[in-house]
Amino acid sequence: MTRFALTVEYDGRPFMGWQRQAHGPSVQEAIETAARKITGEAVAVHAAGRTDAGVHATGMRAHLDIERPITAFRLMEALNAVMRPAPVAILACETVADDWHARFSCIARHYEYRIVTRRAPLTFENGLAWRLPGPLDADAMAEGAARLVGRHDFTTFRSAHCQAESALKTLDRLDVVQEGERINVFASARSFLHHQVRSMVGCLALVGQGKWSADDVQDALEACDRARLGLNAPPDGLYFRRADYPDTV
Amino acid sequence: MTRFALTVEYDGRPFMGWQRQAHGPSVQEAIETAARKITGEAVAVHAAGRTDAGVHATGMRAHLDIERPITAFRLMEALNAVMRPAPVAILACETVADDWHARFSCIARHYEYRIVTRRAPLTFENGLAWRLPGPLDADAMAEGAARLVGRHDFTTFRSAHCQAESALKTLDRLDVVQEGERINVFASARSFLHHQVRSMVGCLALVGQGKWSADDVQDALEACDRARLGLNAPPDGLYFRRADYPDTV
Repeated sequence: MTRFALTVEYDGRPFMGWQRQAHGPSVQEAIETAARKITGEAVAVHAAGRTDAGVHATGMRAHLDIERPITAFRLMEALNAVMRPAPVAILACETVADDWHARFSCIARHYEYRIVTRRAPLTFENGLAWRLPGPLDADAMAEGAARLVGRHDFTTFRSAHCQAESALKTLDRLDVVQEGERINVFASARSFLHHQVRSMVGCLALVGQGKWSADDVQDALEACDRARLGLNAPPDGLYFRRADYPDTV
Repeated sequence: MTRFALTVEYDGRPFMGWQRQAHGPSVQEAIETAARKITGEAVAVHAAGRTDAGVHATGMRAHLDIERPITAFRLMEALNAVMRPAPVAILACETVADDWHARFSCIARHYEYRIVTRRAPLTFENGLAWRLPGPLDADAMAEGAARLVGRHDFTTFRSAHCQAESALKTLDRLDVVQEGERINVFASARSFLHHQVRSMVGCLALVGQGKWSADDVQDALEACDRARLGLNAPPDGLYFRRADYPDTV
């Protein structure tokens, strides 16, 4: 048995999310089905994060075990060939130790949330970014974001369906970067609660629009009450960018 | 009657091209149909350039005449609302003089051609860039591009269906810009022949792959023979970026 670590890019628009679902296509199913076609083995794929329906990835990490001999390069090429035309691409594939686990070995996760501020509907990026018609005050958003960085109870920014045992999380980074009509929010943490990035971005958008102040963000955080959430941003703009692992695994 | 100048962005993937066709959807038809729905008038839309099937635009210019009174802002908003979900967006709309013509007043046209060099299939950009598996030598491509800049007979780089009276054109700019795995080619001229940008980029790709030298590009140019063309690049990577007009119109 050989364990392979994958770096996966996918356009989340046609999928019900990462995780296998009875009622529609998933990224996990696309990769598992392709791996089974290639190897004849019933393959299970585990990811660093289980993204929701409509959420994308530019650098998801995942792993799978294959019994028959195959090189990492051959596996990558075969997966990409078999999965076409599904918008899933294996960008890298390498052999890893048998105890390397895409989810449990992961020590940091990095997301990006893309906002485009313009009146006109999106064309190329329809479903790939959150369009907001008015200009946003990126400096104010950055001020609001700073209130969320650190170790907090993020209950306000957590979906009712979140299965995490505790809402206490350390947010390492929440940067707001403006470039012309684009505002990208970069979020990093060891792990996130369900909907946490979208919930934080939704509230930052309210700050950018002048409807909320940075103090309102802090009040919402300290309330530890989902009902105090200002807005949950749509999945369209969310990208899983990168997962970090200890060098030694 | 008021003449309006439009700045149009479109994803060319679902279209047979800019120009109205009997056998499939076109960008021109999308805008004309929407304008007719809004005004009740039979509206003709004229563009700075007639892009081919699968070619995109980030800043096409076009004009149309409307009899009934309507502001430029109202017209833009209404066109965008009516055209949804077609991937066409009016980014700007302004009133212009009655003799301003998107095609005939245009003094420069700017295209961009996007190449992505990677083994994995494209996901987000499938149909929006030309994927080439190997690395390309961008410096060599720039050297080849330099041979094409200036006033030449571009017969070699012209489609058999080209309707221009003369193949003599002045290419003002053909820049090769590398950024990581991306290579973008920027082309500017008063006007281009049919398939000229794609034909030039196709040959530059051969140079980037080491199959052609800059001298081969020059030989192909000087041959003035379509049969000497190395390769015509696919429409996927081509974008009409901008059209320039005299300040005084």
